[in-house]
Amino acid sequence: MRLATVATPDGATYAAVRCGDAWRALPAPDLSTLLTRDAWRDLAADPGAELSGATPVNPLPRPGKVICAGLNYAEHITEMGRDLPSHPTLFAKFADTLTGPHDAIHAPAAVELDWEAELAVVVGTELRGATEDDARRSIAGYTIANDISVRDWQRRTLQWLQGKAWDATTPIGPVVVTPDELDPEAGVEVTCEVNGATVQRGNTRTLVFGAATLLAYISQFTTLRAGDLVLTGTPGGVGMGMEPPRFLADGDVVRTAIAGIGALENTIHLT
Amino acid sequence: MRLATVATPDGATYAAVRCGDAWRALPAPDLSTLLTRDAWRDLAADPGAELSGATPVNPLPRPGKVICAGLNYAEHITEMGRDLPSHPTLFAKFADTLTGPHDAIHAPAAVELDWEAELAVVVGTELRGATEDDARRSIAGYTIANDISVRDWQRRTLQWLQGKAWDATTPIGPVVVTPDELDPEAGVEVTCEVNGATVQRGNTRTLVFGAATLLAYISQFTTLRAGDLVLTGTPGGVGMGMEPPRFLADGDVVRTAIAGIGALENTIHLT
Repeated sequence: MRLATVATPDGATYAAVRCGDAWRALPAPDLSTLLTRDAWRDLAADPGAELSGATPVNPLPRPGKVICAGLNYAEHITEMGRDLPSHPTLFAKFADTLTGPHDAIHAPAAVELDWEAELAVVVGTELRGATEDDARRSIAGYTIANDISVRDWQRRTLQWLQGKAWDATTPIGPVVVTPDELDPEAGVEVTCEVNGATVQRGNTRTLVFGAATLLAYISQFTTLRAGDLVLTGTPGGVGMGMEPPRFLADGDVVRTAIAGIGALENTIHLT
Repeated sequence: MRLATVATPDGATYAAVRCGDAWRALPAPDLSTLLTRDAWRDLAADPGAELSGATPVNPLPRPGKVICAGLNYAEHITEMGRDLPSHPTLFAKFADTLTGPHDAIHAPAAVELDWEAELAVVVGTELRGATEDDARRSIAGYTIANDISVRDWQRRTLQWLQGKAWDATTPIGPVVVTPDELDPEAGVEVTCEVNGATVQRGNTRTLVFGAATLLAYISQFTTLRAGDLVLTGTPGGVGMGMEPPRFLADGDVVRTAIAGIGALENTIHLT
């Protein structure tokens, strides 16, 4: 199934499932709400009316937790000048950090804005102290994220949060694809283009810590719940790794794609 | 005013204000809810019935954001072997990380559990791109926190989150004291005792970045809202800084006190 939160021309939003060429309504105003219902899989299998003119927006407006892995593709780790890790590097974002799949991304012109295309995992059931098998079964689906980062703020201190949690800078979506239709362990391609030129190309089969491993690891210290989001890290090719470093400019269009899910397309607005 | 979330013998919770020897009810089930109402200051000034047998619990069960400063007392920075910073070091916790002022703290016996007594600031109105003066006026009040940390997990990677966000390990409370009754810029003493022996003693007048400075800084990248919580960092005397390092043992009692607010008292349960 391909799930989304969609907006209709009258401004309402709905959780929705893709049926052929159409979005059909599910009984919740968004996916964050739908996923909190125990029977969400059954509800999604029995959709309501077709929603004409519906377009996907941020699928998860209210995740309880957004946890991100850094340094999780071997080639990106090398690019950043680091050794392969024995534990996942984790940091948090806020619900406010997220934005929609086609929203403009606003930032001050003075900051160093960089791209990080990522596979993101949507949690489908509560996990605490989970095994990898439990974690794998709990996955609601996969979506695309771009962990747009403010590099100069990220480097100001040892902790990355202040470079990673600028409001409305991490686009996600456009759809959440359930695991029966997508297998990142077998490998899906993750790409990022800036103004049509490919800057990142990685494959999720080369993740150091895969989706289920990350969920199980995180659940050793904190509870994950339906609708929580885990970003799996970015492959090589970020702007700060270039010689000389390259950062996003006003008007740049960032296209983030994952085979089998779709693409985000976000225009940068610097002021 | 001294505000709290209190539990009554019948198991209900209430936002409450201290009047003499008694807690009197405010029209919300907890402070998180009360603070989302624009008129919370007026409501708090006109309390309802006395709540007999009421005891303070976690004052903020549902903060939208919990943001923590690290390395913010000069002597603790030296103890950790670092230089004085030009920007605050920030990381996040989750609402799940918090626990009540007298709750036991549970962790696996294998981990290195350490104490960090801290002044915490409760946001009272929305802040985005705020000046320090705006930020100072927005402060709802101050409470006590102990940023109990799992040092071995904190050191596993560059990012501290996985050592800082174990569920129900950061006690806060017992009350939120409004700024008219407490001035951390003038200086209040922050202490931590383990089994009755003082291990930390600092004064908030020596904070590198004070409460209003932290709120204004954070609001440059993300929106703070009423009920959000900002921890201001810990003074010198943590266990990992001792020679040899000392970590919390099963049955240890950690008492965290701030003059003018009160004290947390939490027993460690390792399993």
